Amino acid sequence: MRYPEYLLKLISQFRKLPGVGGKTAERFAFHVIGWSQEKLEEFSYMLSEIQEKIYYCDSCGALKDKDVCVLCHPQRNTDILCVVASIKDVFSIEQTRSYQGLYHVLGGVFSPLEGKFLKEERVDKLKKRLTLLNVKEVIIALDATLEGDATALFLKKELSSFSVRLSRLALGLPMGSSLDIIDEGTLCRALSGRAYY
Amino acid sequence: MRYPEYLLKLISQFRKLPGVGGKTAERFAFHVIGWSQEKLEEFSYMLSEIQEKIYYCDSCGALKDKDVCVLCHPQRNTDILCVVASIKDVFSIEQTRSYQGLYHVLGGVFSPLEGKFLKEERVDKLKKRLTLLNVKEVIIALDATLEGDATALFLKKELSSFSVRLSRLALGLPMGSSLDIIDEGTLCRALSGRAYY
Repeated sequence: MRYPEYLLKLISQFRKLPGVGGKTAERFAFHVIGWSQEKLEEFSYMLSEIQEKIYYCDSCGALKDKDVCVLCHPQRNTDILCVVASIKDVFSIEQTRSYQGLYHVLGGVFSPLEGKFLKEERVDKLKKRLTLLNVKEVIIALDATLEGDATALFLKKELSSFSVRLSRLALGLPMGSSLDIIDEGTLCRALSGRAYY
Repeated sequence: MRYPEYLLKLISQFRKLPGVGGKTAERFAFHVIGWSQEKLEEFSYMLSEIQEKIYYCDSCGALKDKDVCVLCHPQRNTDILCVVASIKDVFSIEQTRSYQGLYHVLGGVFSPLEGKFLKEERVDKLKKRLTLLNVKEVIIALDATLEGDATALFLKKELSSFSVRLSRLALGLPMGSSLDIIDEGTLCRALSGRAYY
């Protein structure tokens, strides 16, 4: 006995979520078909209204409240600008409470093998902002992956004509790790990037 | 910097899905806000239409296609009826292709500690069906958990006045398991329920 048509379609909707495979999608679908109409309508409405209710800052590209972008606020340190791949990365860095500067969201990384290229308008916007603002340092805060490295190299080239200091996040041992389980690559970068007392 | 109000609400919607905690809900939310309006509308529509498009069989309680319940079809073996807790269990048993009888979905198990009681109308319906149909054996196919056991005991009592044979799924070693990793309880049940050559 096969699943009814509608259930199959519902499962395929849930499979679109990141990290959700067939089994999990089935679990979600069987769960929601037991929900009340009210609960379903609420979820349904939230999804359909996303593009109406979620605002992006034209300048930094991060999420903002209806009118103001707190991240582009003049009270923040405009000497320093942090380039990140995604909106979520902004929140991750904000949670550290150790950064007060500006942000610039690229909206993706460079991954030619997957056919992903950088959004040109976001790179152009970055250059425009660097011209307009009096930024002294650009921190490239991208993932420590092949794609992150490629994107960082690309940005380095693109921004070479600007008189800004470029930096990237330190590579090294994550907190709480021990040397006997860490991979060679990380240990190698931790050695070469060692800090002097 | 906190998440915008709407994003928080969206995250709380995803948290309602089974097994989804804060981190996963955030991941889902950040993923869907990047979707096109068309993709969002599709998902949204699927959710709101569930109760219109998913049909339950009045008799067995499982899902059915619009008009007919293939599981209650007279071509199936009406001598035997399998009692399961949820709709999904029906599909799991059907997938084994080793059962041709009828089903009865209880829609839950007995779990007084969690304040969950059996749906009386489903138990009454079961009794009615046993009177109407000429069922010779009832297989209780519930989870091998405390709740499943309690429900099985309850059903055993409720159905004692019917002249049907009661059985429940075998308890024992799962396929591919080895004795040195199996828990005592399972091994104990596998011993007492041993099959003779």
